[in-house]
Amino acid sequence: MKAPELGIKIGRYEHGKRNSIADLGVRVGHSTIIEGDDIRTGVTVLVPPVANPFRERLFAGVYTFNGFSKPIGFIQVEELGYIETPIALTSTLNGYRVADALISLWAEENPEGISVNPLVMECNDGYLNDNKKRAVKEEHVFEAFKSASLDFEEGSVGAGTGMSAFEFKGGIGSSSRVVEIGGEEYTVASLVLSNFGKREDLVIAGVPIGWELRDYPGRGLSMRGSISIVIATDAPLNSRQLTRLARRAILGLARTGSYGHNGSGDIVLAFSTAQTVPSGKEVQSVGFLPDDALNRLFIAVADSTEEAIINSLLQAKTMSGRNGRTRYALPVEKVLEILEKYGGLERA
Amino acid sequence: MKAPELGIKIGRYEHGKRNSIADLGVRVGHSTIIEGDDIRTGVTVLVPPVANPFRERLFAGVYTFNGFSKPIGFIQVEELGYIETPIALTSTLNGYRVADALISLWAEENPEGISVNPLVMECNDGYLNDNKKRAVKEEHVFEAFKSASLDFEEGSVGAGTGMSAFEFKGGIGSSSRVVEIGGEEYTVASLVLSNFGKREDLVIAGVPIGWELRDYPGRGLSMRGSISIVIATDAPLNSRQLTRLARRAILGLARTGSYGHNGSGDIVLAFSTAQTVPSGKEVQSVGFLPDDALNRLFIAVADSTEEAIINSLLQAKTMSGRNGRTRYALPVEKVLEILEKYGGLERA
Amino acid sequence: MKAPELGIKIGRYEHGKRNSIADLGVRVGHSTIIEGDDIRTGVTVLVPPVANPFRERLFAGVYTFNGFSKPIGFIQVEELGYIETPIALTSTLNGYRVADALISLWAEENPEGISVNPLVMECNDGYLNDNKKRAVKEEHVFEAFKSASLDFEEGSVGAGTGMSAFEFKGGIGSSSRVVEIGGEEYTVASLVLSNFGKREDLVIAGVPIGWELRDYPGRGLSMRGSISIVIATDAPLNSRQLTRLARRAILGLARTGSYGHNGSGDIVLAFSTAQTVPSGKEVQSVGFLPDDALNRLFIAVADSTEEAIINSLLQAKTMSGRNGRTRYALPVEKVLEILEKYGGLERA
Amino acid sequence: MKAPELGIKIGRYEHGKRNSIADLGVRVGHSTIIEGDDIRTGVTVLVPPVANPFRERLFAGVYTFNGFSKPIGFIQVEELGYIETPIALTSTLNGYRVADALISLWAEENPEGISVNPLVMECNDGYLNDNKKRAVKEEHVFEAFKSASLDFEEGSVGAGTGMSAFEFKGGIGSSSRVVEIGGEEYTVASLVLSNFGKREDLVIAGVPIGWELRDYPGRGLSMRGSISIVIATDAPLNSRQLTRLARRAILGLARTGSYGHNGSGDIVLAFSTAQTVPSGKEVQSVGFLPDDALNRLFIAVADSTEEAIINSLLQAKTMSGRNGRTRYALPVEKVLEILEKYGGLERA
Repeated sequence: MKAPELGIKIGRYEHGKRNSIADLGVRVGHSTIIEGDDIRTGVTVLVPPVANPFRERLFAGVYTFNGFSKPIGFIQVEELGYIETPIALTSTLNGYRVADALISLWAEENPEGISVNPLVMECNDGYLNDNKKRAVKEEHVFEAFKSASLDFEEGSVGAGTGMSAFEFKGGIGSSSRVVEIGGEEYTVASLVLSNFGKREDLVIAGVPIGWELRDYPGRGLSMRGSISIVIATDAPLNSRQLTRLARRAILGLARTGSYGHNGSGDIVLAFSTAQTVPSGKEVQSVGFLPDDALNRLFIAVADSTEEAIINSLLQAKTMSGRNGRTRYALPVEKVLEILEKYGGLERA
Repeated sequence: MKAPELGIKIGRYEHGKRNSIADLGVRVGHSTIIEGDDIRTGVTVLVPPVANPFRERLFAGVYTFNGFSKPIGFIQVEELGYIETPIALTSTLNGYRVADALISLWAEENPEGISVNPLVMECNDGYLNDNKKRAVKEEHVFEAFKSASLDFEEGSVGAGTGMSAFEFKGGIGSSSRVVEIGGEEYTVASLVLSNFGKREDLVIAGVPIGWELRDYPGRGLSMRGSISIVIATDAPLNSRQLTRLARRAILGLARTGSYGHNGSGDIVLAFSTAQTVPSGKEVQSVGFLPDDALNRLFIAVADSTEEAIINSLLQAKTMSGRNGRTRYALPVEKVLEILEKYGGLERA
Repeated sequence: MKAPELGIKIGRYEHGKRNSIADLGVRVGHSTIIEGDDIRTGVTVLVPPVANPFRERLFAGVYTFNGFSKPIGFIQVEELGYIETPIALTSTLNGYRVADALISLWAEENPEGISVNPLVMECNDGYLNDNKKRAVKEEHVFEAFKSASLDFEEGSVGAGTGMSAFEFKGGIGSSSRVVEIGGEEYTVASLVLSNFGKREDLVIAGVPIGWELRDYPGRGLSMRGSISIVIATDAPLNSRQLTRLARRAILGLARTGSYGHNGSGDIVLAFSTAQTVPSGKEVQSVGFLPDDALNRLFIAVADSTEEAIINSLLQAKTMSGRNGRTRYALPVEKVLEILEKYGGLERA
Repeated sequence: MKAPELGIKIGRYEHGKRNSIADLGVRVGHSTIIEGDDIRTGVTVLVPPVANPFRERLFAGVYTFNGFSKPIGFIQVEELGYIETPIALTSTLNGYRVADALISLWAEENPEGISVNPLVMECNDGYLNDNKKRAVKEEHVFEAFKSASLDFEEGSVGAGTGMSAFEFKGGIGSSSRVVEIGGEEYTVASLVLSNFGKREDLVIAGVPIGWELRDYPGRGLSMRGSISIVIATDAPLNSRQLTRLARRAILGLARTGSYGHNGSGDIVLAFSTAQTVPSGKEVQSVGFLPDDALNRLFIAVADSTEEAIINSLLQAKTMSGRNGRTRYALPVEKVLEILEKYGGLERA
């Protein structure tokens, strides 16, 4: 169950119908790879709601809070302000094969295309997974892409399979918010791949859950953490504005207890589903919200990202992996007790 | 009183002796300007602990989370990685006169100098102050500079005189943390000029203080907010590393309830007091901590910034200003009650 | 005379009617300050072609090639992507007073305004001018602003009064180019304040003029150089695209012989006169050229900047200043001879 | 033959012994892939002069002049300021497989390593090569790595196999410069993968070679160009300084006739071979040149990059490829005649 179903409320805006990035029409597919004792990994693909996600470009911005990370494709998004492929999430050393598989998918669908900028973000699942084996193959990316759906699982699936957060089991989480601006409703959603944080730092709805659970079993070697965050909105924004949105995701991250550890690559990609990027040699008219109108979107980004991280923890399941290690799921009952004790369930 | 004296603990590290930027030897001076009904402003000058703060350069980095701001001198710090003057804080439209006054001070002390990069950061105190009158004159900067001391006031003084935070009275706040790295003790401190935030968003130690005080009197026109943050440390770091530190200040900011509103210029300057920047044409040996060693400094930056913001609120005093407006001091007794209710005083 | 009148052709596009930034309707005013033996300075103000240049915002981008510079207002342009005041050029230590004077002008014209971001760019004219005396006063800025005209002088006037380039007399220069894109004509212009370069590095139209003139008199102390470049265009572009344009100014700079010396602050501001930035809370439709259409604008920026620098040299007049120093005007006859010798006048 | 052997002198500094990046001890290996009518591609690997190039880190900086490019690994270099693998150059769609092959090499040599940041830069050789076939396999990277040598070919080899520059045959070129600073000799070298430019814009030593050769056969479809530039130096510099060096490579690029076309990804990576990056938790002393000492290195970067580009053209050989297209080698005899005519061989 996600946070709201447990009575945990992050921020004051309502979430969308699915409380996930699917509220923007973004389809999500996973390939979960569990093999033997030491392979606990996978790939997750986010497919934007356009007819050909390998050709229609969407306005986008990226933000690197901590660049101890190996994202693929960010440099071009910074320059040109758009995405032109689905976005894949995976584990560190698998990123290049995943990008190559996106090229294969693109090549198949665009025989006339001459170049494309695949987007891959990664975290290091090395605590449970032997990622040097690079278990993610082209077929896993195809599988994730082809199975992408508005109904998708969260938690220990796809890229989230082997991830850890706050020394609990982490992974995929998503959440959305609906805001009204100038008489129109806009949706903002966040999807995260969580893999960062020290146990005692975990905060949920302002309550020091991690500190209270500091003696709960399963603590262990803190590998290089990281978080990859994808923001989508249907508000018509340009790349500069989407970069501003991307930055606010860090406010939500902060509220869950991140300290942006040295080895934690904390990166954000934000895109708008409102319209495709025009091309050609002539002036094109495009609608945008002025910056004066962004405050509610900023709040929505921060809150949906904070909840998405919590949702990744709430939905992940205990998993054992390499070297006999086990990451426990966050003990939801205990969490609710602690929230109760600190008045964390009544707060706005 | 500052947070710890009230039993409010932010983070797990201890603060330094003065729990302020003075723990680094940084002296702080204020000039507070209160005139008639509509002038509530001032200037605050931070003097680094070197013999000649207009000539000896210190390694520094800057970070702009929200550039809806008019800092002076940031471009050069980004390129060269050092500061070469004291740092002044003031209100928006006064910044240029303040920078000019720093030039005067520099010229006096450096007859042979040919150029200098004054540093000024600003927030808009327009709720209580008529800042179009630009009340800050050269003599106020001189006064602030000359009166700089390790014992300095916080709250509604100097640049903080007319500032508002979370629709309470804001202003100057500072806090420090001491960490141990590789067998050595290092201190990190933050000094903020707080002038941002909506009432209901204020969070102290994870507790929704602002929400509980949403009906407390004194709410009013939310002007363009902002926060200027200065970080100092005696850890030997280079400008790239100090920029990394500066970025973590935003984690502390987030935990107090900031959403990085569109009009809120949120900027950070971080410098190291450990050593001066060498010059000349020959190789110079300089000691630095490796990036592997930065985690505790990152935590210290986030926590000391969070506390510095809270301290600015706890120490500011109710003030009336232009257009008959009043900003109330945060009601400390009520805050403590609310903290009590939410278990906010016992938490680690 | 400017380059084309002397038969010097830079690039293959034609220039506009005035071959200056006035081709965009930008008016330029100077205040030239020559006093006693040691004051040789001034201020130049560029007024965009809008009804109220202190209120109507124009899309803009900035680029810092070498940030050993003290521009005022760049941080906000980076964040918000527009300018909202005239742009002033002046000498290093005078920038803050000039910015303050822009505030005065703004305050007068916008009684209801609450904040503004003045834009000032500077170079160090310390070779001929005692800039510690900060001779530029508020009235000089007013004078420059009020006298702004489409017919304006170039060379040793206004901010260019005391500047040096390639150890010759430098200063203000401008040039424009007209290009056709998608059936429409667009103009791009550059205005520079040149104050950089070593004598032997000067190149005009590919010809090593500086090397041939290395023994020409007047070489001397190479102070900290710099160049401030302003680009204007009537092509409808957003801030990201204008930043891309700004970057190409450096290509023109390079072709004149700049090596981007350590002390040379090389900065660029680009804006579009095509339309004002909309505000409000509702979606606004704005026309832009796609990035596919930018190549000719890139060429125009590089070529007009290269020529603007050459024009600043060709039009500056010999000037003596402090410490008995003299900067000689570029000897135009000799330059033409050298160009002739190297086939520099026939080239396309 | 390289430029100096033909009497073409770029700048006033002398080159090093090999006039290439090998002067820094950097070994370069190529794998050239020519198959059938349509495969003309390859990979080039630069191996820094350290015992284990997959583990010993070297200070580095990156600069993106035009981010219409897909470099791999840049985000982490921006954050941490070092490289930790050899640097591979290849063609656009092959980059991900090449990065994956670097992972394989790393994994083999570092069984205990947990993560690594492979560096790949690319240009699009699609004029002669069918890069959708992604002909570069893991074994090619291994081959290039293993064959890396101080004696290496330039021109149409390795990654340069299918590249075009100024509508002539482009590819790999390198050049070096030796400068004296503070009594010490330092070497700076540039290695480029050239694949950009329109015929008529080519300039060599200031002479409009491309214009004069505008009717020379072989013009054709101008594909998306790009240039990847690697700078190495033995001067002890930190990442901020190396980023400053990287930026000056663009000055050399400009002088060959680049206009930074929209589709031309123009990117630079600079690293220092002077020392490895220390790690650990304790203060480490590292020697650096102050920024005051950088001017000659800046000149050396610009000049060696300009010459490296020219060298890539001078050494490339005519090649035919897909769709019956042919890229002609620059006609060196004609170039020398034109240089002669314009006095381009006598200039300093």
